[in-house]
Amino acid sequence: MSTVDQQLEELQDQITNEIPPDISVTDVKYEGPELVVYTRDPKQFAQDGDLVRRLASKLRKRITVRPDPAVLSRPEKARERIMNVIPEDAGVTDLDFHEDTGEVVIEAEKPGMVIGRHGSTLREITEAAGWTPEVVRTPPIESSTVSNVRNFLKSERDDRRDILEKVGRQIHREEMSDDEYVRITTLGCCREVGRAAFILSTPETRILIDCGDKPGSDDEVPYLQVQEALGAGANSIDAVVLTHAHLDHSAFIPLLFKYGYDGPIYTTEPTRDLMGLLTLDYLDVAAKEGRTPPYDSEMVREAIKHTIPLEYGDVTDIAPDVKLTFHNAGHILGSAVTHFHIGDGLYNVAFSGDIHYEDTRLFNGAVNDFPRVETLVLESTYGGRNDYQTDQEDSERKLKRVINETYENGGKILIPAFAVGRSQEMMLVLEEAMRKGDIPEMPIHLDGMIWEATAIHTTYPEYLRDDLRDRIFHEDENPFLAPQFNHIDGGEEERQEVADGDQCIILSTSGMVEGGPIMSWIQHIGPDPDSTMTFVGYQAQGTLGRRIQSGWDEIPMPDRQDGGRTERLQLEMDTETVDGFSGHADRQGLEDFVRTMNPRPEKVLCVHGDESSTQDLSSALYHEFNMRTFAPKNLETFRFI
Amino acid sequence: MSTVDQQLEELQDQITNEIPPDISVTDVKYEGPELVVYTRDPKQFAQDGDLVRRLASKLRKRITVRPDPAVLSRPEKARERIMNVIPEDAGVTDLDFHEDTGEVVIEAEKPGMVIGRHGSTLREITEAAGWTPEVVRTPPIESSTVSNVRNFLKSERDDRRDILEKVGRQIHREEMSDDEYVRITTLGCCREVGRAAFILSTPETRILIDCGDKPGSDDEVPYLQVQEALGAGANSIDAVVLTHAHLDHSAFIPLLFKYGYDGPIYTTEPTRDLMGLLTLDYLDVAAKEGRTPPYDSEMVREAIKHTIPLEYGDVTDIAPDVKLTFHNAGHILGSAVTHFHIGDGLYNVAFSGDIHYEDTRLFNGAVNDFPRVETLVLESTYGGRNDYQTDQEDSERKLKRVINETYENGGKILIPAFAVGRSQEMMLVLEEAMRKGDIPEMPIHLDGMIWEATAIHTTYPEYLRDDLRDRIFHEDENPFLAPQFNHIDGGEEERQEVADGDQCIILSTSGMVEGGPIMSWIQHIGPDPDSTMTFVGYQAQGTLGRRIQSGWDEIPMPDRQDGGRTERLQLEMDTETVDGFSGHADRQGLEDFVRTMNPRPEKVLCVHGDESSTQDLSSALYHEFNMRTFAPKNLETFRFI
Ligand SMILES: [Zn+2]
Ligand SMILES: [Zn+2]
Ligand SMILES: [Zn+2]
Ligand SMILES: [Zn+2]
Ligand SMILES: [Zn+2]
Repeated sequence: MSTVDQQLEELQDQITNEIPPDISVTDVKYEGPELVVYTRDPKQFAQDGDLVRRLASKLRKRITVRPDPAVLSRPEKARERIMNVIPEDAGVTDLDFHEDTGEVVIEAEKPGMVIGRHGSTLREITEAAGWTPEVVRTPPIESSTVSNVRNFLKSERDDRRDILEKVGRQIHREEMSDDEYVRITTLGCCREVGRAAFILSTPETRILIDCGDKPGSDDEVPYLQVQEALGAGANSIDAVVLTHAHLDHSAFIPLLFKYGYDGPIYTTEPTRDLMGLLTLDYLDVAAKEGRTPPYDSEMVREAIKHTIPLEYGDVTDIAPDVKLTFHNAGHILGSAVTHFHIGDGLYNVAFSGDIHYEDTRLFNGAVNDFPRVETLVLESTYGGRNDYQTDQEDSERKLKRVINETYENGGKILIPAFAVGRSQEMMLVLEEAMRKGDIPEMPIHLDGMIWEATAIHTTYPEYLRDDLRDRIFHEDENPFLAPQFNHIDGGEEERQEVADGDQCIILSTSGMVEGGPIMSWIQHIGPDPDSTMTFVGYQAQGTLGRRIQSGWDEIPMPDRQDGGRTERLQLEMDTETVDGFSGHADRQGLEDFVRTMNPRPEKVLCVHGDESSTQDLSSALYHEFNMRTFAPKNLETFRFI
Repeated sequence: MSTVDQQLEELQDQITNEIPPDISVTDVKYEGPELVVYTRDPKQFAQDGDLVRRLASKLRKRITVRPDPAVLSRPEKARERIMNVIPEDAGVTDLDFHEDTGEVVIEAEKPGMVIGRHGSTLREITEAAGWTPEVVRTPPIESSTVSNVRNFLKSERDDRRDILEKVGRQIHREEMSDDEYVRITTLGCCREVGRAAFILSTPETRILIDCGDKPGSDDEVPYLQVQEALGAGANSIDAVVLTHAHLDHSAFIPLLFKYGYDGPIYTTEPTRDLMGLLTLDYLDVAAKEGRTPPYDSEMVREAIKHTIPLEYGDVTDIAPDVKLTFHNAGHILGSAVTHFHIGDGLYNVAFSGDIHYEDTRLFNGAVNDFPRVETLVLESTYGGRNDYQTDQEDSERKLKRVINETYENGGKILIPAFAVGRSQEMMLVLEEAMRKGDIPEMPIHLDGMIWEATAIHTTYPEYLRDDLRDRIFHEDENPFLAPQFNHIDGGEEERQEVADGDQCIILSTSGMVEGGPIMSWIQHIGPDPDSTMTFVGYQAQGTLGRRIQSGWDEIPMPDRQDGGRTERLQLEMDTETVDGFSGHADRQGLEDFVRTMNPRPEKVLCVHGDESSTQDLSSALYHEFNMRTFAPKNLETFRFI
């Protein structure tokens, strides 16, 4: 008998001893980080509202109770009983019964009403029907991404259960080494922005954190091929952790599955969906530009199938010696500061991922409150000595001025924006400005994936700033549903119409003018001296966005009539940069993030910034807080213990 | 056709064009780093004394010319012709004809006379006989190690040719990467003494430098198992380079072959033989102590078979992007400072290995003169702030005083010493002291492998200090042949006799009192208050030597009558420490080594010393020379380019 089987047998005995004698335990299994307890008495289990919580704290495991398939009531009968328990206002849109596990997935417009206070309604559902309920939100704006992901996972349930069981057994394997070390290896994103990838390693466990591409570069990819990365094969990695969905962190996650990786990806639920959206688009763009994509959409589906979503604050065993906890990073939807607790008190490492320290309209500011962190890996996008950004209030004032001036000149406002994050922040700013009369009412066209990304935001309001979340719960106050927003879904024809039409604001991807519909908008708007291109986000070196921002007035453009040939396009439009909307903390925010940590880390690795930004920030943190700081290079390994 | 075959074909054309039309080239092949040129006209090739040198410099390759087997004269006929050419005084002891390659190995007491001025006699041999001569020295003191290695390599010639051809093709493979980096990974020997092991890596090439054990520790071995070491298999390493034969650098070299390594080991010829001697003894000791040896003697033979010996100063291609050069390190016989020139001007790294900066009786001081070195990996055994050692002159004075006092008291002098290095240094000091009458004449008993190690020293006088080398060439002045030296080859019986007999000096292994005959000598001499145990070498933490040195007067001893049981032995003998005979540079020597480098390296990694020694030295070099210095931990990776 394997040690894991032995462990499970002991757990089953322990549970049987802890619960009332009239409640049976027919089986216990690991599914990913959770311990699943099967019982012939699901209703009695549910009656004691505190029983599962007590068990979980006793066993120090996350516990799910499921009915033994032998005692399941028929779905038709269960449906009736469940619908009787759930208040009508909850807006249930779907019930999905899975007889293999006794789970029923309830999709509702107001999931909170299905859950009830402290989960009381969920327990009532089990007491009434004997099934184990799981609740998801009906997207307030229809999202093909969300429904595709949900349908795909439904169709792959069997496969996924096998994956989860295998991962569960891996997590709970016995520790093999009596050696101790904790190390970080840098595979990218050091002294540069892009291709984020790190390995956190102990004698037991190797975890890959992020695996992104580098905007503005074709051939600079993370150093996956070196020995300490995937040299011994992709399955030499035990787990992948994804901080957020931006492509400079996520683009090559699906590639791991092409390389044979077969383990879990830990991330938040919105990051999973956004990763699906963004990586599929990434493949699309590559194909359109005639480049060979490094993997195909099948690998994106593999990535989604292997994702184990975690919520902010959940402390989760992901290896015998590693506990992972995500915290809000304030950067984009689902973005996480990632905290690793290693070896039962031995060491703690936090990766900031990308962070925004102050609250924004969309998100609460990044969490920096951990019981312990000895080493912090900190982004440094705006870590340079002069990278202080305008307050968002001033930025909004400037943006409104730019819009008003352009409007008075009779021009249009073209804003390149990442589909995810800055676009939604802009939408909130613009919606309020129009509502309050600070700028004239005019259509706001959303092109590229902005609309779809917005739909995903409204599916996960728990991840948004608290007051915004509350507004979305009331459909009539959902700012994303304001009537001036128009989804460009009519292609070139619609763009031509808009270009020929009245004054308007256009938000379009890609955010660094590296392709996508913005290229078409530049052809329409670029030659108009009355219009304004307004940059509201970071433009990486080497991108067309950076070039236009820094004054290029002639750019190469593929001739639309004559496919292959490249023409030069003369830019006459005005260009403006409005700082302060960045999803990244500025220099002040980065220092504040560190200053307000308590206790402060002993060591900080400054990454995800160009050479001078990481070195400036490293030196500043050293002098200000007397900690050991580093500006690592790619392909280095730091040992902490 | 492979790129290597294509390369060889081009080389053959080039050679044909460079040489007179009447000299044929029938084949060219790589054998390890050498290019072997086969010709039907070996005699004509030899006639132009400068032709090979011109070709080598033109082609930037090391070139050996061999007769095409089809034109070989019969060995009996060749023998006569060869013996006619070689002066009788050369003392030829063996001729060994290899018809497969047209080589004749000439063993002679005076190899210089077989070689002639600038190789003139060698060329005469070829002109006369058509065979390609290779010369080795007849050991002045019979050495079973040397003859075993030579006989073994003779019996494995076919295998070895295959190995060399494979290695040669590997060295001259095409470069694959257009990326650039140079990194060092520390697998041991950082903030500690022992288990030396480093990886030098570029996008093309991974080189393991040293692979030793840690004296005083059973379970602290080099971190070979981590991904960036042998995680992807032992053949993920392209080459192994061994700085010297001490077990803290060499013990696990044969283990690599057990792990499946099949590539070359680059080292000097004496280091190859000493490694054979020391690792076989290491296995012996393990077996005697009832430990399971990590590999068996077959693996030692594999290591010897895969060794490509290089001489000091030879610049050798060992990978498409790496040239290796060894330089005298002054530490033990064959020890080398190891210089890597990477990527045709890109970067240069030197590993000091263990060094002695000043001349000693045995060796010239370490070489620190390189065209370029950007990073130096420097041993720090005596790098601590107070690790200044006595001058050797003062040390010799003290040693003589200790000997004279002990002699007057009627006691014996017991000196634990490494078989290799310190023992021979002691022999030279004692021989001279007796000859000059500074200490009384008495027998000097050599126990353990000291005799055999001394025989190996006399086989390779080119590696000894110049004046010593010259003395050895004249048999009557060879100090190692002085009559007071007695080889203990009669086991316990002889030891008992010596113990019961007159005053004497005993040199015995192991040098840190970790086993070997010294254990027996301690039982004989330890209880005698008139005798003196004199430490002349570094005693590592955790070793019994360190304990006795620091005052332990009772030590555990296996009871000889009753095998298993451990008795306590009361030590009554005096203990003395005479510094200054170390094979290691002291703090002053380490600083001098760096100070006199020109140009100085930009970065120094201080390794091979305990934590405070490496940190003291690192900080001193930083402040004195304003270079970037580090005291790495094990398991870190530093990137330089
Ligand atoms: Zn980001
Ligand atoms: Zn990023
Ligand atoms: Zn040594
Ligand atoms: Zn050493
Ligand atoms: Zn082999």
